[in-house]
Amino acid sequence: MPRTHATLPRLYVELDLSAGTQLTLGKEQSLYLAAVLRKSVGDEVVLFNGRDGAWRCALTSDSKKSVGLELIEQIAGQTPVSDLWYGFAPLKSERLDYVIQKAVEMGVGTIQPVITQRTQVNRLKHERLVANAIEAAEQCEVLSVPVVAPEMTLERLIDGWPAMRTLIVADEGAASSSPVETLSSLRGKPVGVLIGPEGGFSDQERDRLLALPYVVPISLGPRILRADTAAVAALAVIQAIIGDWR
Amino acid sequence: MPRTHATLPRLYVELDLSAGTQLTLGKEQSLYLAAVLRKSVGDEVVLFNGRDGAWRCALTSDSKKSVGLELIEQIAGQTPVSDLWYGFAPLKSERLDYVIQKAVEMGVGTIQPVITQRTQVNRLKHERLVANAIEAAEQCEVLSVPVVAPEMTLERLIDGWPAMRTLIVADEGAASSSPVETLSSLRGKPVGVLIGPEGGFSDQERDRLLALPYVVPISLGPRILRADTAAVAALAVIQAIIGDWR
Repeated sequence: MPRTHATLPRLYVELDLSAGTQLTLGKEQSLYLAAVLRKSVGDEVVLFNGRDGAWRCALTSDSKKSVGLELIEQIAGQTPVSDLWYGFAPLKSERLDYVIQKAVEMGVGTIQPVITQRTQVNRLKHERLVANAIEAAEQCEVLSVPVVAPEMTLERLIDGWPAMRTLIVADEGAASSSPVETLSSLRGKPVGVLIGPEGGFSDQERDRLLALPYVVPISLGPRILRADTAAVAALAVIQAIIGDWR
Repeated sequence: MPRTHATLPRLYVELDLSAGTQLTLGKEQSLYLAAVLRKSVGDEVVLFNGRDGAWRCALTSDSKKSVGLELIEQIAGQTPVSDLWYGFAPLKSERLDYVIQKAVEMGVGTIQPVITQRTQVNRLKHERLVANAIEAAEQCEVLSVPVVAPEMTLERLIDGWPAMRTLIVADEGAASSSPVETLSSLRGKPVGVLIGPEGGFSDQERDRLLALPYVVPISLGPRILRADTAAVAALAVIQAIIGDWR
């Protein structure tokens, strides 16, 4: 994709976007544009809402409390929402922010924190995760913001898992054949991927997962990967082999 | 690989390692074991040197200035040094540390900082990069420490590039077919991978690279990836398809 308009600030809004629309931003985004980025009347930004693609807009007012914008033209059509489900054992603060960002960059559709026996944190600030996902989408020119689901335990996840969706589990103990063949066999099917915590799943959890008919274990190589590395590595091979890198 | 001895501290040394060897650590590592980790006589650690595998050792003295160790038994044979060459445009401080760590986790053999037109930094503290690579190897139980080469410009890299080694270049403009087919065709050949800077290669640099007979461009999907994400993503697909994940 050519990187036109790459230097224009990009903001996520919930409002409908179409040609000629006039709109006013809320306090936070107004302050950001007018005071932090120091945009003035006539300056341009890009808006997206996850439904209507990306739109080039010009400021009609630059008040720090309520920036006004007029939509000029659509610069990118809406990309389809990703079907890729991504579950992970949450990490602490900065590393958690990082994992959310990477998941958005890698094009997942749903982000599901999963509490396992060895998970470092049990309670998450959902608003923060959502804010991180939005910011990552803005920075990486991703036109849909993944749904960030409230955390759930692994047991509850398994209870509610739709059996027609394959769950790829990154497992240190998986047979060390390349994931290429394993993943290629899943082409065209709805999938999710679950990344375990630092320290891995407990033996009990692993046995439980591997016994499920919809679970497909893959190995991520002979080395130990940190959870955030494993996340990007797993998503990369999945997107490259059966996802939207084709 | 089973994670035996996963909780023992792991230290890189340059000394030869064999059964019954008695050795004394230098000041920095002695302080770390005796004062930071508070190890005492009889406690165990793991040593590796990139040549002789990994060895379980016991402290024979716990002086903060000179910890003594005795080698007990080898717990892992030496893994072959990786042939995978990895070049990247360096980022600033913390993000640079991060990229070094990820390169080690992903099993590269050589880490080459490459200065391009849009590179954020020009001068690197080589010792710091080496220290980071060692620390990453220690933490991720990687038994070889990749060579960290001094930075060089892209032009100099091209001048000295051995034509029999394929250079995979992650290029935003590359044809968007999956890298799976492209990489599969390189199986068995020596390869390197070059990740460009934030903002990408300049048009001039891109044209130069794509004209070289040993360069193979691959796309990393339809989204813009930050340089550190691109690094892990590219290395993951390379290791999975033609590297040591098989």
